[in-house]
Amino acid sequence: MSDSTLSVDLNSDMAEGFGAYRMGDDEAILRIVTSANIACGFHGGDPEIMASTFALARERGVAVGAHPGFPDLWGFGRRNIPFSAGEIERLVAYQIGAAQALSAYAGHPITHVKAHGALGNLTQQNAEVAMAVNRAIKAVDPSLVCLVIALGHQQRQAAEMGLTTASEIFADRAYTDEGHLVHRSQPGAVIHDAGEAAARVVRMVRAGAIETVTGKAIETPIDSICVHSDTPAAVTIARTVRDALEADGIAVRNFLK
Amino acid sequence: MSDSTLSVDLNSDMAEGFGAYRMGDDEAILRIVTSANIACGFHGGDPEIMASTFALARERGVAVGAHPGFPDLWGFGRRNIPFSAGEIERLVAYQIGAAQALSAYAGHPITHVKAHGALGNLTQQNAEVAMAVNRAIKAVDPSLVCLVIALGHQQRQAAEMGLTTASEIFADRAYTDEGHLVHRSQPGAVIHDAGEAAARVVRMVRAGAIETVTGKAIETPIDSICVHSDTPAAVTIARTVRDALEADGIAVRNFLK
Amino acid sequence: MSDSTLSVDLNSDMAEGFGAYRMGDDEAILRIVTSANIACGFHGGDPEIMASTFALARERGVAVGAHPGFPDLWGFGRRNIPFSAGEIERLVAYQIGAAQALSAYAGHPITHVKAHGALGNLTQQNAEVAMAVNRAIKAVDPSLVCLVIALGHQQRQAAEMGLTTASEIFADRAYTDEGHLVHRSQPGAVIHDAGEAAARVVRMVRAGAIETVTGKAIETPIDSICVHSDTPAAVTIARTVRDALEADGIAVRNFLK
Amino acid sequence: MSDSTLSVDLNSDMAEGFGAYRMGDDEAILRIVTSANIACGFHGGDPEIMASTFALARERGVAVGAHPGFPDLWGFGRRNIPFSAGEIERLVAYQIGAAQALSAYAGHPITHVKAHGALGNLTQQNAEVAMAVNRAIKAVDPSLVCLVIALGHQQRQAAEMGLTTASEIFADRAYTDEGHLVHRSQPGAVIHDAGEAAARVVRMVRAGAIETVTGKAIETPIDSICVHSDTPAAVTIARTVRDALEADGIAVRNFLK
Repeated sequence: MSDSTLSVDLNSDMAEGFGAYRMGDDEAILRIVTSANIACGFHGGDPEIMASTFALARERGVAVGAHPGFPDLWGFGRRNIPFSAGEIERLVAYQIGAAQALSAYAGHPITHVKAHGALGNLTQQNAEVAMAVNRAIKAVDPSLVCLVIALGHQQRQAAEMGLTTASEIFADRAYTDEGHLVHRSQPGAVIHDAGEAAARVVRMVRAGAIETVTGKAIETPIDSICVHSDTPAAVTIARTVRDALEADGIAVRNFLK
Repeated sequence: MSDSTLSVDLNSDMAEGFGAYRMGDDEAILRIVTSANIACGFHGGDPEIMASTFALARERGVAVGAHPGFPDLWGFGRRNIPFSAGEIERLVAYQIGAAQALSAYAGHPITHVKAHGALGNLTQQNAEVAMAVNRAIKAVDPSLVCLVIALGHQQRQAAEMGLTTASEIFADRAYTDEGHLVHRSQPGAVIHDAGEAAARVVRMVRAGAIETVTGKAIETPIDSICVHSDTPAAVTIARTVRDALEADGIAVRNFLK
Repeated sequence: MSDSTLSVDLNSDMAEGFGAYRMGDDEAILRIVTSANIACGFHGGDPEIMASTFALARERGVAVGAHPGFPDLWGFGRRNIPFSAGEIERLVAYQIGAAQALSAYAGHPITHVKAHGALGNLTQQNAEVAMAVNRAIKAVDPSLVCLVIALGHQQRQAAEMGLTTASEIFADRAYTDEGHLVHRSQPGAVIHDAGEAAARVVRMVRAGAIETVTGKAIETPIDSICVHSDTPAAVTIARTVRDALEADGIAVRNFLK
Repeated sequence: MSDSTLSVDLNSDMAEGFGAYRMGDDEAILRIVTSANIACGFHGGDPEIMASTFALARERGVAVGAHPGFPDLWGFGRRNIPFSAGEIERLVAYQIGAAQALSAYAGHPITHVKAHGALGNLTQQNAEVAMAVNRAIKAVDPSLVCLVIALGHQQRQAAEMGLTTASEIFADRAYTDEGHLVHRSQPGAVIHDAGEAAARVVRMVRAGAIETVTGKAIETPIDSICVHSDTPAAVTIARTVRDALEADGIAVRNFLK
């Protein structure tokens, strides 16, 4: 960060279509966020949509990262496919490489990596999986920032491994007192009101702490806010969160700027 | 090349299994060749076999390259899938990146790229496809050597584009007077006798020219000999060719050494 | 047909999503058409969307058929993948069987087969591919109606083979004097105005003939009108065509009723 | 069974290649077994190998069945992919239909269904998965025999559902006192000696009971012996088991004969 203003990044998953299929309104979201996590062809994405989304992000000045997931197009990367930690290391490395190549091709190299869906959740809960993702990043390019879920295993390990992390919180998800996401099956797990989500994000960024369902605060670096791109209300929530941050004097910019 | 001895590279396609499936005896072939073209997961290959083959090649001191193909596991990359030149550019870039990442992971970075199967054949016959492959290499890493079919479009273009090429001939395939491969449906298209294949390879390397079915010689740089890995006789032919070259005083070593 | 009223079927492709991906508004289209062609998992579709669409069609009283395509999810079945006629026969048989099983599971057995995309186009232009599709139908269940493109090879062959056909015309595509579709790259190839498409369909059904771009009429049985489901205007065009037919006293019902 | 001679079926998994890949020596195994379980394209298999294997089985007089697995070519159906019971029901129905169609095409209709790999193991351990497979069979064709693991959930449920079952034991796997397979990670889990495997099979068939690692006997119908096809020793073990059964006066024939 170049000045004393409080700032935060806004990130969203992108390029998750496949062939003729589309997922989310990337075009609109790319006008709002400051980091785009680009699907790498395993849970979604293909070379065409990867290259064109890298190019569009470049045009818009949005930083880009690889968004590796399980090889599970059918399940959109949302299922835990039983892979060993070693296998995860290698399938993440593969996807980072593919993203590096296509982002270089588009003239806009990736600067971070964020795990997708079930793989991302596992990095928070499972130390071995977290380590596998971190090891893949380190082996392929240790200068890439690990964009990680706040308070998870990947965050702790990355520091020890000499990797740079950026910690994210979710704009529209409730947290337990343990710092985990409330399960989607529970009432109140997802915050549907854009205004409420935005106000809460501002409070958390100002406090440097996650706000839990019981009102407890858990301190953590908050470098980025994750906004969804694949729900009908996604664009509205993203815009509302950004506007609220800026109205509060918090700069919205990529964690590397 | 570091001295005045005539030398030539021996290359073979590798890591073309998928999951539980195996293709060819990579272990044996890696004792013979000096370049291994590693499948990148589209026509064959997956992160596991890619990483383990890069590691084995490193152990054996065999140089490695990316071996991109059409996304056609069912057809093993041997069918012309109708992609535009732009689409080919991007799917080749994707695969080079994946190979770069996993070869870095294995501590043995790739130094060349060779197109597979139907894609490789198209680079010889179709100037647009040849250009697409060359452009992908240039965009991702222009220091990678283009391992190309002798006398094809890719060879000519690469020089103009400032890319380094190594030209290959096939140990066991007959050539027409136009410098193309005799189609497999024709009698004599494939040379099944290891000794005959080896003697012919030695003559062609010594002559610096391809020998055609009518006995004509077509001059071309010959930097590498392609030996197959996926036929029952593959290991025997590869070994016989290597022995014949060395018996004739021709050094067998990678084109970058 | 049970009475002397002129009648025609309205058919549309359905269930072409995959996993989390959706394609077209099947729910709305199933309120309008009288035949639904259900994708079988090769160019689109999966067991979930197949079963749920069969169930919804049953609820709505819409007849269902298998909609086999090339195994090309990436290309959505719109590319000519080089398969031999024998291979096509077998991959079509496979898909018909899958559709039979899931339609039986949903309590609403399929009664027709219609080839998708590039495969469908080939059946009109290439006698061998047409024969391959017809042979697959005959081998698996000769009581299934072949829903075919009017004036194509499949129509002629089916009669000779003892198969029942229903011939379709397209609501929104212009025809050449040879009875082929005007290529999409030509001006006027696609009729975008719903009213114009509807009026033209009524004229063709009344005339028992295709109307070509030069105003020529080519006689053919017209058993069904194909309306698209995957374009933004699809629902409007389908509704307008149906209303115009009924306003003209033409009954809209499945070809088997 | 047509006479009073004790008889048993010998079954093996088949057609598990994909495209250019091969798995096991189906040709040799089809000379030995009396039931062939044909992969359906999800964990292995494609329309080509399915049709040609159905045709070869017909020629050899070997009965055939569908061998559905998880959609996991990469993992060869050996991993538990998290599907709900309803999803399993539909993906099994899909595969049975595909096998019915291609077996009809080859003139040799399937007469049984046996779940593959991880899915098969789940049917033994998990009542819901067992029910899902049985419900799929019942919905698609209740005349198909359920070839099930002896002492598992599928066996018990099938009887209640009015489905016919044939119970199988494994020629080369040790059993716990609970009637489960000893896990492959345990010493003695797999019996590698063909003669020992064969003698044990004869004892179990004669006794009408599974023999456990502690020497306990657990009574169960034994209608079929499963022999592998995908290990180097597979053909030898299968042949040795068959010869030992016949030498002991036990007829080797399909459970429907």
